[in-house]
Amino acid sequence: MPEDAQLLYNKVCQHARRTALLGSIEEVLGWDERTKMPPAGAEHRAEQMTLLSGILHQRRTDPDFGRRLAELSESPLAADPHGDSGTTIRRLKRDYDKRVKLPQSLVEELTRTAVLGQGIWQKARAENDFATFRPVLEKTIELKRREAEALGYPECPYDALLDDFEPEALTSEVTRVLAGLRDELVPLVGEIGQSGREPGVSILSRCYPIDRQEAFGREVASSMGFDFNRGRLDVTAHPFCSGLGPNDCRITTRYSEHSFASALFGIMHEAGHGIYDQGLRADQYGLPLGDAASLGIHESQSRMWENLVGRSHAFWRHYFARAQSRFPESLGDVRLDDFYFAINAVRPSLVRVEADEATYNLHILIRFELEQALLGGELAVADLPGAWNEKYREYLGIVPPSDALGVLQDVHWSGGAIGYFPTYSLGNLYAAQIFAQAETEVGPLDEQFARGEFQPLREWLGEKIHRQGQRYPAAMLVERITGKPLGSAPLIKHLWTKLGPLYGIG
Amino acid sequence: MPEDAQLLYNKVCQHARRTALLGSIEEVLGWDERTKMPPAGAEHRAEQMTLLSGILHQRRTDPDFGRRLAELSESPLAADPHGDSGTTIRRLKRDYDKRVKLPQSLVEELTRTAVLGQGIWQKARAENDFATFRPVLEKTIELKRREAEALGYPECPYDALLDDFEPEALTSEVTRVLAGLRDELVPLVGEIGQSGREPGVSILSRCYPIDRQEAFGREVASSMGFDFNRGRLDVTAHPFCSGLGPNDCRITTRYSEHSFASALFGIMHEAGHGIYDQGLRADQYGLPLGDAASLGIHESQSRMWENLVGRSHAFWRHYFARAQSRFPESLGDVRLDDFYFAINAVRPSLVRVEADEATYNLHILIRFELEQALLGGELAVADLPGAWNEKYREYLGIVPPSDALGVLQDVHWSGGAIGYFPTYSLGNLYAAQIFAQAETEVGPLDEQFARGEFQPLREWLGEKIHRQGQRYPAAMLVERITGKPLGSAPLIKHLWTKLGPLYGIG
Repeated sequence: MPEDAQLLYNKVCQHARRTALLGSIEEVLGWDERTKMPPAGAEHRAEQMTLLSGILHQRRTDPDFGRRLAELSESPLAADPHGDSGTTIRRLKRDYDKRVKLPQSLVEELTRTAVLGQGIWQKARAENDFATFRPVLEKTIELKRREAEALGYPECPYDALLDDFEPEALTSEVTRVLAGLRDELVPLVGEIGQSGREPGVSILSRCYPIDRQEAFGREVASSMGFDFNRGRLDVTAHPFCSGLGPNDCRITTRYSEHSFASALFGIMHEAGHGIYDQGLRADQYGLPLGDAASLGIHESQSRMWENLVGRSHAFWRHYFARAQSRFPESLGDVRLDDFYFAINAVRPSLVRVEADEATYNLHILIRFELEQALLGGELAVADLPGAWNEKYREYLGIVPPSDALGVLQDVHWSGGAIGYFPTYSLGNLYAAQIFAQAETEVGPLDEQFARGEFQPLREWLGEKIHRQGQRYPAAMLVERITGKPLGSAPLIKHLWTKLGPLYGIG
Repeated sequence: MPEDAQLLYNKVCQHARRTALLGSIEEVLGWDERTKMPPAGAEHRAEQMTLLSGILHQRRTDPDFGRRLAELSESPLAADPHGDSGTTIRRLKRDYDKRVKLPQSLVEELTRTAVLGQGIWQKARAENDFATFRPVLEKTIELKRREAEALGYPECPYDALLDDFEPEALTSEVTRVLAGLRDELVPLVGEIGQSGREPGVSILSRCYPIDRQEAFGREVASSMGFDFNRGRLDVTAHPFCSGLGPNDCRITTRYSEHSFASALFGIMHEAGHGIYDQGLRADQYGLPLGDAASLGIHESQSRMWENLVGRSHAFWRHYFARAQSRFPESLGDVRLDDFYFAINAVRPSLVRVEADEATYNLHILIRFELEQALLGGELAVADLPGAWNEKYREYLGIVPPSDALGVLQDVHWSGGAIGYFPTYSLGNLYAAQIFAQAETEVGPLDEQFARGEFQPLREWLGEKIHRQGQRYPAAMLVERITGKPLGSAPLIKHLWTKLGPLYGIG
């Protein structure tokens, strides 16, 4: 006897919510591991994680759950794919169908290879020795090819992998937008290099005592709207944001006494992620309507607060005097405009995580193009370092002096995360296009920022993005908000508008 | 077809280990809740804990597990109850049999009443209003009676509850030893009160900056042997020690700028627990041979380090100059002997957690006697405050001015922990008797302490206690180590030896 659709729906939601509750325990373990766990605790923690992920995998691939979802997807509750129940059914079914397509043996081999790969990569990077990393990367690429074949894809195998991070995105679409971006960025960066102007960035590496950096960072994050009653800020080597529950979002940063910008913009970046997390619907926790739309949309929130807000002239018209009073020895004699130029310096560099707002996307493009070529078989892993260096020469005009500063710099590929990189640039593109729309709907934003008012922007983002959850795929969400499909024009316009006057170009 | 005993044994151990692994995740959640969780995270954390404890309960009462244990207990592997496999089978079966004896409905009612009770108690204590606490305490006592009846007991219902904290201990035995202690302590405390001597305790409430207190506490804990590579020290309102894994033991303390003693002796106390945890056999993690013998034995380790080591004259012959150099403004003009007298001041007081080494046990005796009378029905909850005050007058010569400072001061009863209190005094008794034995086997300990050497004592404790796990019930363990059944003489002797000269009595 078929179960009543509403009853089925309730069961499916309850199952998903309990799975998410269990998954949130995994987040606690992960946060603790990265922030507080004593060094010798690592082995036992790995065992705890393995046990929990086994229980989670069972729940997520539970055949009853799958049967109910299949039945529901034929019911009237699924009729509107972007309605409340329709969204829930569509997204849960999507995730379930993906998970059960992967044979257990392949999942285990991927996991094992990722753990192994990260260990080998760490050593290879430390010793600047690509050759020892090559075999495990070859294995990874081969496994990811098998994964893509097992999952299936609309146009090309890369689609299947990209989908893990940016659901329903197509490689062809992403390529179109990123290629457009590249064609504008390369000449922009070139003109900046030829401009003959350079900001005095050394003011940013004067002495900034860490306790005062932290206090300033907390002040800024709070005024952005990050709620410390529902969150924390800690210190880690690699900053991140983690949601441990609907009212427990934790961000981290790292401090260096002689670097004003890295911790502050790091905090603003992670607080941007955190505000998205804290803005999700708590009543839908564990369900698609209470979950983030995609990694790209998540990154759009962090990049928007970091770059479009935090590196704006208006923001510092409010905050510069406050920064000066916290750091009088280092900023007392600095002019606002010199400071503003310094935090917006553009200069081709070798390392992605240290790149500026403009060149950052070129770092991503290089990785996006290379990983597609690796997966498609047009590029052999053995030829990867050479191809990497060639792209850096072509797009950024510089060549890494070593693989450690080149092809070995990022952790992603070693852990099997192929298809992740483009979400960073998608985040920048989404951010610029959404921000331009916010300007027309809640602006003038710069006047608000100059008064230290961030609530109007935050509330608008909450309504347009945070509380939408996964109702729409990212591309559709952006088009609904802005009235246009994603394009590179808003980001390019933002960069020219800001950098043109600073460098006297354009 | 009956399974081969060795195979059965392996399955049972694997089940128990996996259960412990899952249980250790509960410890992570609990530690985080008490130390780091943002305030608003409490509700979701409670849901995580409930989910996990449900999964744990299922595993711990799994009928297959019980059937295998029953079969094993008849096998040759269980022949020696204190051999490796015998200990494992005996203790696992014991825990299993206890758990399945309690009807699910009673467990749930106990849990619900405990949660409710703690909430009501907090409010009642804050408002000094025993009357609002009375109904839920009556309910708790009634439920605990039913629990005792369901579990069964050798001599009296209190045995069944005591067994949760001090397995295999008998109320009659504990009563015999504690009554002996009472008969010696009451006159000792009386004589001290009549001595006319009082140490200058105000030196301990001078200014001791918290960052330096923390550094000093870490130095002391490290030299005792607490391994920070396998542990942490954090700050909480209510200090505790929690084992999150075989190599991850975390202690906490609280600091007050105007209290030198509370944080330091708190750290030594928790580090004593921690050294026991870190000394358990990691290869037996999750099994009885890798678990602590009892709460009383655990407390013996914390009390030994706190009182028998930390409040000894020898310890401060090594550490006082170090403390002076860390706190020159507050200790520079203080003589070692005056400091030593101050940290060993004895004075009847109202609040257990602030009591000194001698009067502390009288606080416990009062609770032990009252909870037995409540459970046995000789004392009505309505008459508890009066009985409490009467006992304080009788044993300590003081009467609480309010129930908040009297019968409402402790959390234990509100959470259903009846039978817990005596483990504190058992800990003191075990500690004194074991320490006296250590003196004869690895002594002279005071000469070692005066040189800052704690390794000989720690290693002896490791061999005699930590690495024994649950091989012997606590009373048997102490008798094996010391050659005598537990008695009050060693503790009384220790107190007279220390306090006699200080107060000029005896």
